[in-house]
Amino acid sequence: MSVLNAQEIEAIHQAITEYKPGYGLPRPFYHDEIIYKADLEAIWSQGWLFAGHSCQVPNPGDFFTIDVDEDSVIIVRGDDQVIRAFHNVCRHRGSLVCTKSEGQIKRFVCPYHQWTYGRDGKLLVWRGMQDNLEKSGLGLHPVHTQELEGLIFISLAENPLDFEAARQVIAPFARPQGFQQARVAKIMDFDIEANWKLVWENNRECYHCNVNHPQYIKANFDHYNSDDTIGRIALQLEQVTTRSEAKWAELGLAVTHKKTGMTPFPDPDQNIWYSANRTPLVDGYLSETMTGRQVAPLMGDYPDADVGTLRIRMLPNFWNHSSCDHGVSVRLTPAGKYLTKARMIWVVDEKAQEGKDYSLDELLPFWLLTAEQDWEICRNAQKGVNSRAYTPGPLSIIKEYNVDSYLRWYVQELSRKI
Amino acid sequence: MSVLNAQEIEAIHQAITEYKPGYGLPRPFYHDEIIYKADLEAIWSQGWLFAGHSCQVPNPGDFFTIDVDEDSVIIVRGDDQVIRAFHNVCRHRGSLVCTKSEGQIKRFVCPYHQWTYGRDGKLLVWRGMQDNLEKSGLGLHPVHTQELEGLIFISLAENPLDFEAARQVIAPFARPQGFQQARVAKIMDFDIEANWKLVWENNRECYHCNVNHPQYIKANFDHYNSDDTIGRIALQLEQVTTRSEAKWAELGLAVTHKKTGMTPFPDPDQNIWYSANRTPLVDGYLSETMTGRQVAPLMGDYPDADVGTLRIRMLPNFWNHSSCDHGVSVRLTPAGKYLTKARMIWVVDEKAQEGKDYSLDELLPFWLLTAEQDWEICRNAQKGVNSRAYTPGPLSIIKEYNVDSYLRWYVQELSRKI
Amino acid sequence: MSVLNAQEIEAIHQAITEYKPGYGLPRPFYHDEIIYKADLEAIWSQGWLFAGHSCQVPNPGDFFTIDVDEDSVIIVRGDDQVIRAFHNVCRHRGSLVCTKSEGQIKRFVCPYHQWTYGRDGKLLVWRGMQDNLEKSGLGLHPVHTQELEGLIFISLAENPLDFEAARQVIAPFARPQGFQQARVAKIMDFDIEANWKLVWENNRECYHCNVNHPQYIKANFDHYNSDDTIGRIALQLEQVTTRSEAKWAELGLAVTHKKTGMTPFPDPDQNIWYSANRTPLVDGYLSETMTGRQVAPLMGDYPDADVGTLRIRMLPNFWNHSSCDHGVSVRLTPAGKYLTKARMIWVVDEKAQEGKDYSLDELLPFWLLTAEQDWEICRNAQKGVNSRAYTPGPLSIIKEYNVDSYLRWYVQELSRKI
Repeated sequence: MSVLNAQEIEAIHQAITEYKPGYGLPRPFYHDEIIYKADLEAIWSQGWLFAGHSCQVPNPGDFFTIDVDEDSVIIVRGDDQVIRAFHNVCRHRGSLVCTKSEGQIKRFVCPYHQWTYGRDGKLLVWRGMQDNLEKSGLGLHPVHTQELEGLIFISLAENPLDFEAARQVIAPFARPQGFQQARVAKIMDFDIEANWKLVWENNRECYHCNVNHPQYIKANFDHYNSDDTIGRIALQLEQVTTRSEAKWAELGLAVTHKKTGMTPFPDPDQNIWYSANRTPLVDGYLSETMTGRQVAPLMGDYPDADVGTLRIRMLPNFWNHSSCDHGVSVRLTPAGKYLTKARMIWVVDEKAQEGKDYSLDELLPFWLLTAEQDWEICRNAQKGVNSRAYTPGPLSIIKEYNVDSYLRWYVQELSRKI
Repeated sequence: MSVLNAQEIEAIHQAITEYKPGYGLPRPFYHDEIIYKADLEAIWSQGWLFAGHSCQVPNPGDFFTIDVDEDSVIIVRGDDQVIRAFHNVCRHRGSLVCTKSEGQIKRFVCPYHQWTYGRDGKLLVWRGMQDNLEKSGLGLHPVHTQELEGLIFISLAENPLDFEAARQVIAPFARPQGFQQARVAKIMDFDIEANWKLVWENNRECYHCNVNHPQYIKANFDHYNSDDTIGRIALQLEQVTTRSEAKWAELGLAVTHKKTGMTPFPDPDQNIWYSANRTPLVDGYLSETMTGRQVAPLMGDYPDADVGTLRIRMLPNFWNHSSCDHGVSVRLTPAGKYLTKARMIWVVDEKAQEGKDYSLDELLPFWLLTAEQDWEICRNAQKGVNSRAYTPGPLSIIKEYNVDSYLRWYVQELSRKI
Repeated sequence: MSVLNAQEIEAIHQAITEYKPGYGLPRPFYHDEIIYKADLEAIWSQGWLFAGHSCQVPNPGDFFTIDVDEDSVIIVRGDDQVIRAFHNVCRHRGSLVCTKSEGQIKRFVCPYHQWTYGRDGKLLVWRGMQDNLEKSGLGLHPVHTQELEGLIFISLAENPLDFEAARQVIAPFARPQGFQQARVAKIMDFDIEANWKLVWENNRECYHCNVNHPQYIKANFDHYNSDDTIGRIALQLEQVTTRSEAKWAELGLAVTHKKTGMTPFPDPDQNIWYSANRTPLVDGYLSETMTGRQVAPLMGDYPDADVGTLRIRMLPNFWNHSSCDHGVSVRLTPAGKYLTKARMIWVVDEKAQEGKDYSLDELLPFWLLTAEQDWEICRNAQKGVNSRAYTPGPLSIIKEYNVDSYLRWYVQELSRKI
């Protein structure tokens, strides 16, 4: 009963016919409850979702939980060091098994009747149940999990998408960053009063950066495009790219994006929902920090600070920007048609000590400011598209090619999987 | 998809068959989400809505916004002094263009990508868009606007109702009040946790005044009716009416309502949704203030304080009570099936200075008290009609003739326009 | 329009087919709005609801109100000492008649237009209405009421269930407790963010008591069952039961439950939705208090403190635990699919004086702790069953026989009455 009925599915297909590539989405996609439900089914219950960093659960029994709309999921490291995920729902009467959002456990003991599950999800104890019942089928419902160079992904699907293509693309980029030898410097959670798709549209272009992100544009070339990349900028980028290419190749690091503007992503025609690239920063910037200076010890395999910026992204809920000395992951989760939760996770090298090797005052502001500026933009966008008068406008082929790709990807997924 | 489907429209027509003239509305009209949606379509998107006073935007570039349910609208004075209204929705990606509720602008610059619109709504700048696109069709969506003697009305309809009949009736009454040479003394906003129709029903009778509005009834004859207008009151009203009529006629001011009780409004048979009249106050009252004394300089063309009280009302969202020295406008906007926003605007002569010529302590209480008393009544009415046990009761033909007229008007509009 | 349409009823019947006796309910029963609406119609508008204690309204004109979802009901003692209930909705325009939740009135005067009703609900005054209308049919809508040994029950049904069978079972147990000569020691209200059915499931087993209610299990035998009633406990219970039986029979008090574990209730096969029993407490406990000591004067007809514990329960909203010196009633009311209001009422003998004969510090904690522990369990259960991954688990036939009975009763009622 909670899923969509035939009439609702027909209404969604009808709405899809009103979408025109090259334009934004029509109002119902941001506004109607049944599209939100359809998104949960077609996108969020199908795709691979970033859950967190492996270094959040360094030891067996370490766990944290993640809520995807109404689904609570436990991420836990097993005794065999493997990270697994389980639905946080007791197989007995359905209570949350974990009522804490993170911690360390020997076994998961349901607070209601003390049904007890191992770190591998198996049901171990159910005092008081009749003998003729079989325990074996009553472990915590498992959730597909993939660990990728220190990043944890889960899929709520029964038969998840193939993850290997994503791994092959991302692993070579992520490996030298050393997420496996990292520690969490800070986790912050945000409520964005906007549909999750508006958050992605915002993420997929830097057309809005000039005015909205004064600190961000000093460090990056993303906000320039064919219409405004003047000679001086083009020359600067060419110089820094050539220099970086030579140096990084020597170190085994690839430079894949050599132009101003954002690297193309996603690619709905090739069904590409994951990507990674390394890109030079503006001269004088060794890290995405307010001053451009390195503010923490080098991470991973980096020989020096001159490694540009690494970007990883995966639909529908993850992006990461990493510099030589730290990485920042953003994790989205839907919590209603007009509410998206965002978690930001800053990581540094595992040996770095706060107060001695780095300070949060230097580490956080660059991306914290950028994120808060974006969340406010998204809130105003939601208020606007809620208007009955809203009509989708044309997208800039110069600056919003990725928004267009993203929307085409979204509509394609929705059409196929609903 | 956001509009009503065939099944819903049929359900509404079914509900309408359960309404009986002479009685209140059945529960679904106050309680059901689809009727609220129908009201938005049939009433709020069709009628003329009071937005504010012209004196809120005295100079070119002055603007304020108004929210009608989820639709945000900008009211702005143009370089040609004409007041216009536009949907507060960028034609690009749909963001709110104005995130402030009032102010002064040269151009409307969307905070997202800086698409820039003139004070006339025209799209002027869209840095970064491809050259082959045509700007001309992408101005802010216009909203029909009418200025009427210093009062601003808008219609969200594509083809709005004819405004001229309303203008002809109201203008002669409004003109001598001098709203065009007024200034705002105070704006206050209220949340009324009640369906908008309950607020109107409350407004359309003074049956509730005796006990609920002890200060209001001292100044007015509204609360008397054929059942309780004793000889002394009838004589007093006759004397004051005769005296006023003679005097006001000399000044070119009409007296249209000469009886106790409220002037009949609306008239569903003639499809009259607007009206104005001038009525004497009780002897000793020169203004609707706590003491009856004039508390601010004379407004408009008035030669002296003895001009009774002017009343203007327009469905679905406006009424105004004005005295010789000030006017009070009430503007309703729906914000949910159980939530109505009310804005009260007190205006005085444009030359009057606060602290010198008037004080808010003397100006506000009469109507502020009356309004707050009414909002509380409406909240209790909503709680009551939400009960499954609520059944519409009979209306008093002596004291609630206007409630009956109003409900007949409402049901007629809903039937016709759904 | 507010009730269920054919499509919705079909969907509910479909959901019912997915319920399996011996297991919990499928997710839609806790999660879907239309099932909540169906519960209101089939259960809450049909059954007998505990409203409060007669001693809350000792004198004519004393009243209190109770909200059942959106229905407000007044309970009032009449001039003839009979307790009656009325819908708190004016027959005129539907306003709440009583805006206070309790008090003393001569007549109910609607705050809107002062329609005035007697303590018997009759319309007495309607100033301003036309003469040709008939007042007689316009009293407050009555609500069926039953007083049972100092307990007040109401039914919102037009044709309520027969109450007499319930009375015959409960009265002999309730009478000696002396609720008729009681006074309220304390009333406390709670919000439980859980579907009302989860609160009942929690109430119907003591499987969860061992860990969750450390103070409760010291006083009772409820939490033992065939799987864990060791010889020492069995012996202890036998001794105390034999001793109590002999003594209580002499006093005319019945002992009906002589085993560990909870007395069976409800009985869907016999359609039994009410029950009462008297049960021994653990040796050393004379009252359900933290110390086991009697903390207030004896109630009712009890000759001494050794009267065990009296339990009464009635679906869908009432249970009471009483000791020799006090009684505690719990009243549930639904306020949304995920929100249940609970009111707890502690009563003591009418002659007992706070501060002299008893202190709240000694009287409240035992049940206050137990209740708050349970409400928190219910909140966590709601969060868990909201997950798309939730699947109903097997119930313990040893410890959850009453949960199974309760769910079978619920599904049966829903099927029959929808």
